[in-house]
Amino acid sequence: MENLIYLDNNATTRVDDKVLEAMLPYFKEEYANPSSMYDFAKHSGRAIFEARGIIKDFFNAANEKEIIFTSCGSESANMAIRGVLNMNKNKKHIVTTKVEHACVLNLYQTLEKEGYTVDYIGVNSNGEIDLAQLEDAIHFDTALVSVMYANNETGVIFPIQKIAEIIKRKNPQTKFFVDAVQVAGKIPIDVQELGVDLLSISGHKFHAPKGVGALYCNSKTILTPLIIGGHQERGKRAGTENVPYIVGLAKAAEIATDFLKYESTEVKRLRDKLESGILKNIYNARLNTGAAYRVPNTTNIGFEYIEGELILLHLSDLGICASSGSACTSGSLEPSHVLRAMNVPFTAIHGSIRFSLSKYTTEKDVDYVNEVLPGIIEKIRLISPYQDELAELKKLKNM
Amino acid sequence: MENLIYLDNNATTRVDDKVLEAMLPYFKEEYANPSSMYDFAKHSGRAIFEARGIIKDFFNAANEKEIIFTSCGSESANMAIRGVLNMNKNKKHIVTTKVEHACVLNLYQTLEKEGYTVDYIGVNSNGEIDLAQLEDAIHFDTALVSVMYANNETGVIFPIQKIAEIIKRKNPQTKFFVDAVQVAGKIPIDVQELGVDLLSISGHKFHAPKGVGALYCNSKTILTPLIIGGHQERGKRAGTENVPYIVGLAKAAEIATDFLKYESTEVKRLRDKLESGILKNIYNARLNTGAAYRVPNTTNIGFEYIEGELILLHLSDLGICASSGSACTSGSLEPSHVLRAMNVPFTAIHGSIRFSLSKYTTEKDVDYVNEVLPGIIEKIRLISPYQDELAELKKLKNM
Repeated sequence: MENLIYLDNNATTRVDDKVLEAMLPYFKEEYANPSSMYDFAKHSGRAIFEARGIIKDFFNAANEKEIIFTSCGSESANMAIRGVLNMNKNKKHIVTTKVEHACVLNLYQTLEKEGYTVDYIGVNSNGEIDLAQLEDAIHFDTALVSVMYANNETGVIFPIQKIAEIIKRKNPQTKFFVDAVQVAGKIPIDVQELGVDLLSISGHKFHAPKGVGALYCNSKTILTPLIIGGHQERGKRAGTENVPYIVGLAKAAEIATDFLKYESTEVKRLRDKLESGILKNIYNARLNTGAAYRVPNTTNIGFEYIEGELILLHLSDLGICASSGSACTSGSLEPSHVLRAMNVPFTAIHGSIRFSLSKYTTEKDVDYVNEVLPGIIEKIRLISPYQDELAELKKLKNM
Repeated sequence: MENLIYLDNNATTRVDDKVLEAMLPYFKEEYANPSSMYDFAKHSGRAIFEARGIIKDFFNAANEKEIIFTSCGSESANMAIRGVLNMNKNKKHIVTTKVEHACVLNLYQTLEKEGYTVDYIGVNSNGEIDLAQLEDAIHFDTALVSVMYANNETGVIFPIQKIAEIIKRKNPQTKFFVDAVQVAGKIPIDVQELGVDLLSISGHKFHAPKGVGALYCNSKTILTPLIIGGHQERGKRAGTENVPYIVGLAKAAEIATDFLKYESTEVKRLRDKLESGILKNIYNARLNTGAAYRVPNTTNIGFEYIEGELILLHLSDLGICASSGSACTSGSLEPSHVLRAMNVPFTAIHGSIRFSLSKYTTEKDVDYVNEVLPGIIEKIRLISPYQDELAELKKLKNM
């Protein structure tokens, strides 16, 4: 695509050139099955061994054995959640949040049908988790607490270390699973400092390909496998190892570590420039997350009294990619469950747009969006049925 | 690897140049999440749509909706088996064979612990399935019959169409799952003619990468998903689609279809040349499958009174890759469960080697193995503790 301005990096990312380069030899040259015994297979076996060490370091895990390679974030989450519950079948209570990714929420809805009780913890209007409610919810029967590290739609970061402390205080037997898909490559991950039992990441959110993920599972936590079969991943995940993607995941983790500073400075500067430009120039724009602590690349902005789908359509016509929620639920007309949990006013919830940047986002990209978006929004405002409300808002904002 | 002679294509295969070429644009250029709504995502969405059509044709399925993309053969099998059983929870009986892939057998052993009764059907000394035993085993409570299309160690093809007829006669409610991982790209697959309900393939066995597979599930068969989450694969398999590998799987299927004739003529000719060369020149060699009907690329030969691992070591030193069983169980000193089920004599079972060819195998490769193998075997025979038996065998064979 020429002139593509891709601001949907929380949905998926472009594969880094160096990641692709690292993967290429494992397709046509070092293609041996790592489980084979001959010398030729030692190369691919070694590649996986090294990749595991890199991911161990990426998480600051204590041991390589705590790393399980999977095919995606969803598989990691399903494996963690089902695996923990299967090992503690007498406990039937789960605590999670109202704003987890659709993938995780759908699984919990299925588990409710299977006899589990699930408490869904709420968030405030900035999207911040209600820690008191969480603390109250955990009891002797709680098998699992499952909280995302950062929200995919808002970028709001949850205080994982604090939550881990609460869990261990309330019920040291309760396992803690963290969906860290939206923080990998954006802020550092340190599983030991955080005190989590299980943590999942997905490669395609930080410039590795779609179709590879990893699960951290500490040595005190025993899981049943989701995919049973061969002895791969120490019997925890069957299936011939996807050597190229595992190598790619590790390379992406290495690069991401090098870019963490860039994320927290330059990507953040561009995100802030985009955000303040929009809020300054468009009177019916509101920042849905207020002053919440967020990952550096994400902004979620509500355009009051107009339709988000229309905004996206106009942006798409100009080659600008953004989204109104998670890609996994796009196509549905329901407003985002995340923004609903935040009680975003109905006047803004249908017109909320997520912009998510990456290291590939340029100043030119951001300037262009800031240049064209006011005109797009103005055009859409003209056909809004809420003209009086818009006029009032304009007056109120002195614009 | 220079001078690599890769005769372990049932373990995994080299990715075809054209497959890699087809995948490349989807890493760095057409990287959109296919679930996204903007124009940019239409390209990757379209690629998956087309790939699904190609795999539909590859199976001769009635409908694209019957195709589910997965991350590997093991996932396909786990999904098929668990999915069928979950939908028929009142039925607790399964029929399978003693010679299924380790992946499938391990899952059945787990299911036995969960309360299922599993009948394991035997094979004769050529590795052919006992159809009378299979027919006897199916009854009113049988939820699932699960039979591989061709065995990974011996290449022996099972009469799937006949088995489907038996099942439908004995219990039309029973679902029939076929692990077709070892036939894809070797012989044609026609799910409608075969009359199967579910059928799995794995990309890396026919020159697509490791980490992608497909499951055929006919429209009469309802499955619970194994990976719950987003709406991908019509809600049957969550996780952002691995666009490059799905495109690669489809390209590999197209190429494989074009090469089916080459497999059944040229690959078969080279396999037969290798096989007859070995049997002619090495007096303690026996063909473990007798006259059984096999896929064209596989031969399983028992070298009596010597150790298979030693043969493989000597072959590996010369850059020749072969195996003594499936890669997924390699490293274990237990003799193959497949050869044990065939009652291969104990004198040959420990010295059995599988050679599996591909379209990349050359006449030179085969000639070289035929040239060096007799010397290797002779060297190993010299250190065998069975010198009297070897001498007798030599006399018997007039060699």
